[in-house]
Amino acid sequence: MTSHDSLARLSAVLEARKLANGGDPETSYVSRLYAKGPDAFLKKIGEEATEAVMAAKDLERGTTAGLQERFVSEVADLWFHCMVALAHYDLSATDVVAELERRVGLSGLEEKALRKAQAREADGQ
Amino acid sequence: MTSHDSLARLSAVLEARKLANGGDPETSYVSRLYAKGPDAFLKKIGEEATEAVMAAKDLERGTTAGLQERFVSEVADLWFHCMVALAHYDLSATDVVAELERRVGLSGLEEKALRKAQAREADGQ
Amino acid sequence: MTSHDSLARLSAVLEARKLANGGDPETSYVSRLYAKGPDAFLKKIGEEATEAVMAAKDLERGTTAGLQERFVSEVADLWFHCMVALAHYDLSATDVVAELERRVGLSGLEEKALRKAQAREADGQ
Amino acid sequence: MTSHDSLARLSAVLEARKLANGGDPETSYVSRLYAKGPDAFLKKIGEEATEAVMAAKDLERGTTAGLQERFVSEVADLWFHCMVALAHYDLSATDVVAELERRVGLSGLEEKALRKAQAREADGQ
Repeated sequence: MTSHDSLARLSAVLEARKLANGGDPETSYVSRLYAKGPDAFLKKIGEEATEAVMAAKDLERGTTAGLQERFVSEVADLWFHCMVALAHYDLSATDVVAELERRVGLSGLEEKALRKAQAREADGQ
Repeated sequence: MTSHDSLARLSAVLEARKLANGGDPETSYVSRLYAKGPDAFLKKIGEEATEAVMAAKDLERGTTAGLQERFVSEVADLWFHCMVALAHYDLSATDVVAELERRVGLSGLEEKALRKAQAREADGQ
Repeated sequence: MTSHDSLARLSAVLEARKLANGGDPETSYVSRLYAKGPDAFLKKIGEEATEAVMAAKDLERGTTAGLQERFVSEVADLWFHCMVALAHYDLSATDVVAELERRVGLSGLEEKALRKAQAREADGQ
Repeated sequence: MTSHDSLARLSAVLEARKLANGGDPETSYVSRLYAKGPDAFLKKIGEEATEAVMAAKDLERGTTAGLQERFVSEVADLWFHCMVALAHYDLSATDVVAELERRVGLSGLEEKALRKAQAREADGQ
């Protein structure tokens, strides 16, 4: 099973958990998030990003398999809640990967990122 | 080209940008991040997460193609810098997708997420 | 000079930097933030929060005066940008301190925080 | 009662909630955070920062007293958990306010912030 299949399958699950598609807040964590409204899953993005950063800082102190697993797990939590948000706005991981692909493919990842960084510097941020 | 190919290709680019693999901070944005050290790309995770949340909040006020594109772009920035960090710790998006796949596949995404939420509640967080 | 004087003085400076009060984006960092609009200073809140967390994690590895100073400096950056945002919405640190005082004073900080934590748990977050 | 008194009083409460000072995780929310360890209160900094940003974005859609109160409440949550962390590292809000005071007082807030922004730009961030 490829990454594409995995992300597409997960996207399909999230889609099915929307209340309009019969998702049940009593039995589904994702449906419960949708029932609470956007702030419920958006704040998870901020929370999981912080947890991913903390896990990465722990990896700085010495790499072990357990710490690597925890960092991967936190990034998975972060991406998962991003996908919940994407589905809410009728978007999906496919759109994100396409955007990443576009950046790598078109004129080179580096050039794109460099241009953006240069624009930010010129703009004084 | 599948998502798997895209993410794998991006991972290979990031790997090549490591200083040990000949990445040049003068010409590559990613190599510059690696040269500055972990805090430089980890703080981008927090920054881009906040920007993604702000873009999502703007989508709440009314969905337009432009606002959808901006949200996708911010999530792409977030995932991109996560991948920079993953590569630094000799991990990759493949590990994250495998973790997501494991959650969806094994006993059902919902059950796993629910168990985690219940454990958190029992623990008083 | 008390904390109250310091925060009030800083609030007055921020107020004077608003464009409507003659703040000049060419010479003032704060006026430049106001000219760019809310997203410019709101994203700093997310960024500085992440930097504060990273500085705290470094303190976990061993406390030195330099690391303590850096943590204080990052928290100061975070509170500073919060105060920029507060001023933008015609609020100030005084309102925040009053809210903290209210929590400590009225029925006890602990009771308030515990009630909130319990409500969150009951709500399944 | 001045802000100084309020913050100093809150700092004293936090100090008393440390386990070494007899704080009880069974009855005190703060003692419970200290018992769980730094990650428990540091992740709250990231979470509350995100909630403050979301509350600010809601204020963009139209200012009401209720939305202003919510923003103040979220910033209070953020500062509160910063103070929990400060106390853990034997620091306090007094140190943060002194740092803010130093920036405003010494050579002018604007010059300091501008110098920092210019250094960041020169450094390519």
